[in-house]
Formats: sequence, C-alpha cells, structure tokens
Amino acid sequence: MNERTSHRVAVIDLGSNTARVILMSAVPGYSFRLEDEIREVVRLRQGMTTDGLSPEAVERALSTLQLFSRFCRSVGADIVLATATSAVRDAANGPAFIAQVRDEIGLDLRILDGEREAYYGVIGALNEVATDHCGILDIGGGSAQLSEVGDRRYRKGISLTLGALALSERFIDSDPATKREIRALREEIEIQLDSIAWIDELAGKELVGLGGTIRNLAKIDAAARGYPLNTLHGYSLSRDAVDQSIADFRGLSLNQRQKIPGISSDRADIILAGALVVAAVLRRLDIDKLTISTSGLREGIFFEHYLRDLPEPVMRDVRGFGVLNMARNYRYHEQHADQVKLLSGRLFEELEPLHGYGPPERGLLAAAALLHDIGTTVAYDGHHRHSQTLIHYNGLSGFTPRKIALIALLARFHRKGKPDTAGYEGLLKKRDAAVLTRLAAILRFAEFLERGRNAIVSDVLVDWDDEELRITVVATEHPAVELWQAERNAVPLMESAFGRRVRLRWEGEVGR
Amino acid sequence: MNERTSHRVAVIDLGSNTARVILMSAVPGYSFRLEDEIREVVRLRQGMTTDGLSPEAVERALSTLQLFSRFCRSVGADIVLATATSAVRDAANGPAFIAQVRDEIGLDLRILDGEREAYYGVIGALNEVATDHCGILDIGGGSAQLSEVGDRRYRKGISLTLGALALSERFIDSDPATKREIRALREEIEIQLDSIAWIDELAGKELVGLGGTIRNLAKIDAAARGYPLNTLHGYSLSRDAVDQSIADFRGLSLNQRQKIPGISSDRADIILAGALVVAAVLRRLDIDKLTISTSGLREGIFFEHYLRDLPEPVMRDVRGFGVLNMARNYRYHEQHADQVKLLSGRLFEELEPLHGYGPPERGLLAAAALLHDIGTTVAYDGHHRHSQTLIHYNGLSGFTPRKIALIALLARFHRKGKPDTAGYEGLLKKRDAAVLTRLAAILRFAEFLERGRNAIVSDVLVDWDDEELRITVVATEHPAVELWQAERNAVPLMESAFGRRVRLRWEGEVGR
Repeated sequence: MNERTSHRVAVIDLGSNTARVILMSAVPGYSFRLEDEIREVVRLRQGMTTDGLSPEAVERALSTLQLFSRFCRSVGADIVLATATSAVRDAANGPAFIAQVRDEIGLDLRILDGEREAYYGVIGALNEVATDHCGILDIGGGSAQLSEVGDRRYRKGISLTLGALALSERFIDSDPATKREIRALREEIEIQLDSIAWIDELAGKELVGLGGTIRNLAKIDAAARGYPLNTLHGYSLSRDAVDQSIADFRGLSLNQRQKIPGISSDRADIILAGALVVAAVLRRLDIDKLTISTSGLREGIFFEHYLRDLPEPVMRDVRGFGVLNMARNYRYHEQHADQVKLLSGRLFEELEPLHGYGPPERGLLAAAALLHDIGTTVAYDGHHRHSQTLIHYNGLSGFTPRKIALIALLARFHRKGKPDTAGYEGLLKKRDAAVLTRLAAILRFAEFLERGRNAIVSDVLVDWDDEELRITVVATEHPAVELWQAERNAVPLMESAFGRRVRLRWEGEVGR
Repeated sequence: MNERTSHRVAVIDLGSNTARVILMSAVPGYSFRLEDEIREVVRLRQGMTTDGLSPEAVERALSTLQLFSRFCRSVGADIVLATATSAVRDAANGPAFIAQVRDEIGLDLRILDGEREAYYGVIGALNEVATDHCGILDIGGGSAQLSEVGDRRYRKGISLTLGALALSERFIDSDPATKREIRALREEIEIQLDSIAWIDELAGKELVGLGGTIRNLAKIDAAARGYPLNTLHGYSLSRDAVDQSIADFRGLSLNQRQKIPGISSDRADIILAGALVVAAVLRRLDIDKLTISTSGLREGIFFEHYLRDLPEPVMRDVRGFGVLNMARNYRYHEQHADQVKLLSGRLFEELEPLHGYGPPERGLLAAAALLHDIGTTVAYDGHHRHSQTLIHYNGLSGFTPRKIALIALLARFHRKGKPDTAGYEGLLKKRDAAVLTRLAAILRFAEFLERGRNAIVSDVLVDWDDEELRITVVATEHPAVELWQAERNAVPLMESAFGRRVRLRWEGEVGR
C-alpha cells in the first residue's frame, strides 16, 4: 500500500453561541477524514448592544481564537480557514474586532455575510446528500438560512434571524414557556418566512436539514424509535415527529427536558425554538419530512478548499466518492476489492433475467464489493462483522438509511452465514430479504472466485434451465483454489438464492 | 507514519482431523498479525490400518496440500512452513507420503515427533501467557501433549494418544455414550497419565490449556456465564466448570449437544472425550483451574521463525510486546502515545502517597496510555469507545481478563465521562471502581496536557494539603492550549478522584 501525502486543514467557525475548530486530514482527490475537533462555548451575543459585542464577549472570543490558533499550529495544520457568522456580522464593532484578531493573533478571520453562510451550508450538504433539487434549511444559534438548490448547485439563499438561541433569548422567559410566549415566537417566524419572496418555489420539494438543533431533533426521534444505525446520515425526520417533540418540550421544564433520551444537554434550553422553526417551514412548504445532512457550514468551507480544482466545489458522484473514501480510510486492498466488484458485477448482469434487478441493486452490490473487507482493519477474525459495524457506524454519503443497512448486511454475509435482516427490520422493505439473499449470493461467489487475491479469474458466464445453473469461470490458468473455495463456500447460498443446483466449470481464456 | 516492510509467513498444519493454513503478516521486531486463514477437514485417520494412511486419505491430503500451496503462492507468502502431526507420524507409510508431497507439490512437509509437537505448543503459549513456571496441556484430534515450563523455557514434554477424536473413535460407539464406554475411556486416560514419570512435578502448578477442544470448553463456560469479553485470552476455566460440562454432555445425544450455546458444531461429537482428559489432568495435578492460551502449535511454528534472532523464540516481556503490537497494528501516533505514557507515569509517581498503588496499577496505566487513541482507526467521533471495543475484542497477551477489562475501561474514559465499571462487574474486584477512577483521572490529565500533540510539557509536579492539590506543569514555553484543556476537561475528574480542589500552574523549565 503506498502511503499518500495527506495535509491537514483546520476550519475555525466562530458562531454566536459556540466556537469550533475541526481538523481534517485530506489527500487531494483521494480521501479525507475528521482528525480532531474542539468546541468552546463563547456566548458572543451575550450583552450585545447597538455598540456591538460587549468587551467581555470580545475578550472571550479573542482568548478562544488565540487558543484555537495555537492548537492549529501545534497539531501541524497546513491551512487554517477561519470564519465568523451572525454575531460578528451584526455587531457594529465587528470590523474592529476582525482587525484586533488580525493584529493580536495573526489570524485572518473572515465575516460571512448571510448569503455566504447559506452558500457554505449548501456546499457542505451537497457533498453528503445525493439530491439534485431541494431546499436546505440550516438552523444555527444566531441565524437560520434557507436556500434553494437546482441541478446540484446553490441557486439562492437567505439568512434570517431565526437562530434557536436568538429566538429563545428574545421570546422565552418562562420555564416552561407560556402559551403567549410561544404564540409570539410563532408569529415572528411567520413574519420572517413571509419576507422570503421565493419561498413558494421550494414548496413540495425535498428539504434537507442542517445544524446542531435539527440533528438533535433527529437524534431524539431516533432514540424514541430505536433506530438501528449509529449515524444520522440520510435520516428522515417527519413533520409528525417534529410536532410530537414540540408537544413534549412544551409541557416540560428545562430540568425535565434534560432527561429526554437523545437530547444534548447544552441544547435543551433552545431546542423548542428550533423545533418551532422546523415545523413552520415544513408547514409552509407543505411537505411531511426533511432529510438530515450531518455536514454543513464547516464542511462546506473545507470542501471549497478540498475540491478547489472543480468548477464548483460539489462532487458529482457523492455516493461513489463516499464509498471510495471509506474504503481508502480503512486501507482497503484496492486490487482485490476491484476484482470482487468486477466479478460480482458480471454475475449480476448474467443473472439479470433471473433476479430482474436494476441499477439501484447493482449500486448496492458495487458498494458492498468495495467495502466487504474493510473490517480487516479491526481484526481478521470476524472481519465480516467488523465491516458491517464500520458501515453501520459511519453511514455512507448519499445513500438512504435502507441502503446503508443493506450494504452493511451484504458485507456481513459476504463470506459466511445465512443472510438475515435481523436488527434492521424498521428500515427495510418487505422484498429486501430476497434482495439481500440474492446479492449476498452473488457477492460471496465473486469473493471466493478471488480467494487467492491475485485476479486469476477474468470473467464469469452463466446459463441455466429450470433445474440447473451452470457457471463457467474463465481464467488463463486453472483456478484451482477459487473453484474449490467457491464450491465449498459459495455454491450452497447460490443454490438457495436462485432455486437451482449449481454446476461449476472452468474454461481457458479463448480470445473472446 | 513510515510504512515498514512486512512479509508474509504461511504456516500449514496437517492435523489428524483438520488441515489448516494461517497467513501471518509480520514486520520483524515490530509487529505481526493474522491476515488470512483456511481450514479443511481431511479426516486423515479415517480408514487407517497397520499399512498406514488409506489411499483415500492420502488423496484428500494431497489435494488439500496442493490447494494450500497454490493459495500460499497466490497470496504472496514469502515463507511457507508446513508440518504434519500424529496421523502422518503414526502411519507406516508416513515417509512415503512425505516424499510424494515433495515430488508432486514441491512442498517440504515436516513430520513433527511427539516432543517437537509439544515444544511448538509451548512456544505458542509462552508468547501469549506471562507465566514463568507452568504445565501446558494441548489436546488435539489425534494426540495430546503435556509439557513442563520452567523459567519461561520448554523443559520437557510428551505426546500421548489422548486426542479427542482418536479417543472418541476408539471408545465411544453409542449416542449418548454409555457408562461402560466412559469408564473404559477414563481408565485409558489414567493408564496413559500413569506412564508419565514426571507428572507429579506439575502438581499444584499453574496449568495452561491449548487447542480447539479446550478453547471450546472455555467458550461454552463463557457463554453460560455471560462472560463480558469477546476473547478467551487468559480465560480461567475451572475444574467445576469442566465437571459440569461433562455432566451435561453425558446426558445428551449428539443432536442435543449441538444446541449447547457456544459449542462448535464440528466438535460436538468429540468434546466429551476431550473434557474427560482435561478433568483427569486437573484431578491428577490437584489443581482447580487452567488458563486458556489462544495460541498453540501453529503460532509456535510462526514464532520460531519470527523470533529467530533471540536465543530462544520466546518473548521476555509478552505483555509489553502485546501492547505495542496492538498499538502498531492500529497505527497509533507513537510520539503522542509515548508522551501521554510519560506524563501519566509522572503523575502516578507524584501522587503515589495519595493512591498507594504499585507496579500492577502502573502497568495498567502504561498500557492504557499507549492504547488510548487506537479507536481513531475506526473514527474520530467516539474514538474512546472504539478504543475500548478494540481492546475488549482482541484481548491483550499476558494480561488477566480483569486487567484487560480495566485497560479497556481506562481507554473508554480517557477523555470524557464518569468512570463506571458497568458491564464488567463479573471480572472486577470490589476495589477496582476506585482504581479505575483514579487511574482514569491521571490518564485524562496526561492526555489533555498533550492536547496539542507536540510534547510541549516536559514534566508534572504535584504537592498537596488536605484541601488542595497543586499541579505544576513544566514546559519551556507557556502551554496555553494544554492548561486550558486540562482545566476544562481533566480537573473535575482529578478533583473527585483525589478529594481535593485542583490548582494548576505553569513553570518554565528551570535547569532541573
């Protein structure tokens, strides 16, 4: 395995409530991963007046940025991208603060205007979700952004003062909030939504949700439902779930809300306001759910740098790159994985009249073929289970939870065991048990035709009658290990998946 | 991270019932890991007569070895070490078979005599367990070996025809076995044990058990007890548990035995005979348990090669190397881990009068310091939990299950959370909750004093009174990030662990 040169990109994000630094390790055009993260509550809006940020807030921000900057130096960040959003943007003394940061810390802190903030959220999301046209809602502490995406491009966006913290501070004094407070808050949300001239263009379209508040709403819903994956990638948060959460939050004091399974303790005080914004947007757009993106502003800033050689910093094939990125991060054996992908793809094609599946299932098979062995990074023993866990834990960009579950299960059953959807029932369709069994049979067959990991088999041909499936393995020399291992380990599942006896033969390469 | 050159060592082991090939990836003096494994049932003893192996058995063995040999070539094994044990050793036509293997396959298959077989089992075990003096019992299919270890060296050993398969075939025809059959089997075991002139020298000593049958007995016991670790490293199998298993097996038909949780389906027919051997040896030596080694013959053959530069192929410090091997296999950040180990060791020393712990606890802390971040190989998010899982799953050579659990928990709590022994109660002592809390406090402190990962802190000094713990951090320049992060993230646990308010200060290096 050749070691590629990675570099480290730090993104600093000075938000209204929280400052964060993430450290990404990146190999251009190859892979990236999160390597470190620090967050610090700075409460920048506290004590803000028409003069701007209070001296105490400036002090806290400076000291935090100083520490972030030292941290970036000490861990060897090659590039530091630092931005500030609504609090600094709205402050009369924002420019003076930026100058002070440059002078005292030597850090070039960029103030993002509202549209730029919306843009980066969109860039982050588009590199994780695979939609072409959608609305994107990003709720932060100070502001919220609503944007429109067409043909996988940012079209337009607007920043509203609908941040969960800003709204809570302005409208909610009681614990729990009174009916009157909530009514006033709702009116404010409606007024601001009314101000978006083009909001109706988003009506009925898919909506993607970003930011900690929305993620936390999804996490609470996931906990209540016993959601089987460990990631919120592609999670579908329904309007009913949001309404249910609002009803729950309203009746509870802060102390009681803290005990809701899945809630982040430092969001329990502002999550009701955030949930009201989500509910209002869903109602306004007349849609019944939104899809979570776990990437947003910070990732958008990272991707602008990472994908700087593209005309727009948005991957065309977010699924394909996501799979490769995971495989590469777990140091997969590229040649072996490619060969299993090739052979399983050929089997899939040859068997098409029998299974009748199309591009979606083929995509699952290809992803599983590339990822089936990543669990060896944990241990050889039980590596099929470790592969499952790694996929299940991390999720896969652009895939729905159902597809993530199926890819994880294909990896699980790539070498042994009777395919079984146990644990994922809530995510799967009825027909998925059959999909799993057939694709696992194909994947396993390809895996054992590549048992010697030297790409000895160049093709596979299949024909059949009602009784028998005849599989012809094409190779320049006799693939003894592969035939033996496929016969032993892959034929039984193939027979049960396609309801026919399997006969396996070898054919020398014949100048086809 | 510099990529070291690894080579691949294949070990082929042609046993009486099963043939196996393991492929080890090894970097001399640095690390090794299992990379692949194939096993094939050859039933070499089936149809064996005074003329030796039957023609069918020879055919099966030749074809299996041919495939193993091709497999080794195709995966790029640099070295292939092939051995045969009791069936070939006992067969009149064994030498002819060896010649045929050489001529037809080009494989140099070495017949191990009984003592050599015992020797390799001992070498395998001594590189996994940390005892100096012990007996070692290895039960295979055809034979069983009993050996004596003194000063971590093989002293003597003997091979007996007490293999689980051989005994079952000779004595058990009924299902379940009759009283009479069991009596005859027991008598045979006693006669053979009587033949070992030096067996009493092992009386009262520690006994280490190897081989699939013994591992399976441990696995059954572990399943019944709800054992929390996923590994049998260092598992203690009690005489009571073996007696209980024998009582259970005796009353059940093969079909019923197959359903016992933890039993290997291809051992259910021979495990009773194996259990009777274990019970007889424990009784004879008057000891009440044995300790499992998961390494045996094949690993012994590998270690003879891997450690060939040592006078004896046995590690002196099996714990130390096991920890490093795991850290290296998970590509730890060596400089960071060493620094956390150094600082946590210094804190441990300085605080010694307060905690009163000695070398055993310090060993746990050092292991956890080297391993705390290995979970980043899985993902940065939640890496403390991943570190715990990796340790918990793989085990650690030379450590008892209790210590493995404590090291896993220290990794778990190295950066956040309130230390808690939940899930491991059965393995831990009463005082371990306090041990965990104090060592986790120390480890966490050291971790945050190395937050910038650049070894800026060179030492830590501690003094205290009844109220206050004063921690002086020594560094050439002001360790701003480290003081901030330690204050934020490590002080609270330190305060509760040592019952004092913590005051943190920095001191420039003063030519100490």
